[in-house]
Amino acid sequence: MNYQALFEQIKKKKSFLCVGLDSDMKKIPTHLLSSTDPVFEFNKAIVDATADYTVAYKPNVAFYECRGAVGWRSLEKTVIYIKDNYPDIFLIADAKRGDIGNTSKMYASAFLENMPFDSITVAPYMGEDSVTPFLEYDNKWVILLALTSNKGAFDFQFFEENNKKMFEKVLEKSQEWGTKENMMYVVGATKAEMLSDIRKIAPDHFLLVPGVGAQGGSLKEVAKYGMNQSCGLLVNSSRGIIFADTSDQFAIIAQIKAKELQKEMENLLIEYSIL
Amino acid sequence: MNYQALFEQIKKKKSFLCVGLDSDMKKIPTHLLSSTDPVFEFNKAIVDATADYTVAYKPNVAFYECRGAVGWRSLEKTVIYIKDNYPDIFLIADAKRGDIGNTSKMYASAFLENMPFDSITVAPYMGEDSVTPFLEYDNKWVILLALTSNKGAFDFQFFEENNKKMFEKVLEKSQEWGTKENMMYVVGATKAEMLSDIRKIAPDHFLLVPGVGAQGGSLKEVAKYGMNQSCGLLVNSSRGIIFADTSDQFAIIAQIKAKELQKEMENLLIEYSIL
Repeated sequence: MNYQALFEQIKKKKSFLCVGLDSDMKKIPTHLLSSTDPVFEFNKAIVDATADYTVAYKPNVAFYECRGAVGWRSLEKTVIYIKDNYPDIFLIADAKRGDIGNTSKMYASAFLENMPFDSITVAPYMGEDSVTPFLEYDNKWVILLALTSNKGAFDFQFFEENNKKMFEKVLEKSQEWGTKENMMYVVGATKAEMLSDIRKIAPDHFLLVPGVGAQGGSLKEVAKYGMNQSCGLLVNSSRGIIFADTSDQFAIIAQIKAKELQKEMENLLIEYSIL
Repeated sequence: MNYQALFEQIKKKKSFLCVGLDSDMKKIPTHLLSSTDPVFEFNKAIVDATADYTVAYKPNVAFYECRGAVGWRSLEKTVIYIKDNYPDIFLIADAKRGDIGNTSKMYASAFLENMPFDSITVAPYMGEDSVTPFLEYDNKWVILLALTSNKGAFDFQFFEENNKKMFEKVLEKSQEWGTKENMMYVVGATKAEMLSDIRKIAPDHFLLVPGVGAQGGSLKEVAKYGMNQSCGLLVNSSRGIIFADTSDQFAIIAQIKAKELQKEMENLLIEYSIL
């Protein structure tokens, strides 16, 4: 999916919501556990209930990998189901991969070739040749970790050389490798006011913002400091939507929660003259 | 496996060799391709041929993940086979994972609980809570990326604050989270002379050194600058052993290559008074 198509989808759905499919086997409704692939059934129900309100889905791979080959099968089935039934929706593999060049190539093929993901989150520590193999696919994206939303972000991401912080260096340097057409950045919403500084370095790129909801960020603040002329934001919510309810009504409650966020986003898109 | 047991194995086998099982489906001998699980058959043959000369095996997970659920099954079978048949050998999941706390916990369970790995390589960018969940298992290890062997290492790992480089900061800071008993570091052999500076910060920790062989490092240099009183080194070779030959003689050639490295290592262990 290219930049323009993503922006068109945002305008059409009046939403920049990404739903995180962190489908923890221990948290999904118990009535699903008797099916042959409970995680897939859960994801399918969540997707069918929320697809009108979201522009992206983001399975975090850890929640599948922890179930081994069986979990991988659930992941494969989930992304194929979404791509077959909702081809306009942007698919993010939240995998945080990164290795030396010939190995990153293998990860790229795992997610961008063998599965129909549009994008993958990548860790920057190993530098250029760990990132660029993911950029070799047309209309596929790297979403590079810049400033994460967790407490540990302060350990290394704020390391500073000549008044430049590590995450700022990542934002700058990586623009030699990719463009706003194939690279986004992960920027944690728990530090929304920092988005205005980030916009000075990366004015046009899409930012994937986790941490709204369970991790504590405010949507209004994120839009205030982070939105650009093409919206430029994908804001993720995982637990606040998919585990809002664990009864047999879980999908309809997830839909209500997604719709609430979409409505809030619609108002912000109007406020900032995107719609 | 604990520190002492690993050191005992090194002395017993007179080796600090780690064999990297980067078992690329496209490179394994063609006569294996007709079996039901060619990668597992290949790994089994390599392991049986080299186990006397190596103290560790390190499958790089990317080479399995790129084959989806089927590849994960090959990985699971491989590590179970090694643990069942060679329980003294140290098993490294070269996965370079790392995510926010509750997600890293899932990755930890994937590799250290659901599979019998002794250790996993972890990327440091997200800081403390992305690393510590992997440290919650007795006698299991984090192998943290510090200074990698690829060209891209220069992009961020040499970023410098107050005369301290990023990789040095990683070495220092992470010693607040783990000890020489549960944490090792990845240090690329292409910069062997830098090992002496690294030894000033981390004198007692084991270092996992990739990049000897195909990536260009010299074993003598690595020992000269990096060895400590408990050896403190695991030196990896992947392609130089496992793909040294692709005929039906591949296993015996791999054995010869592993034995050559073991012999070189034995001489170095004697030279530096470990044996």
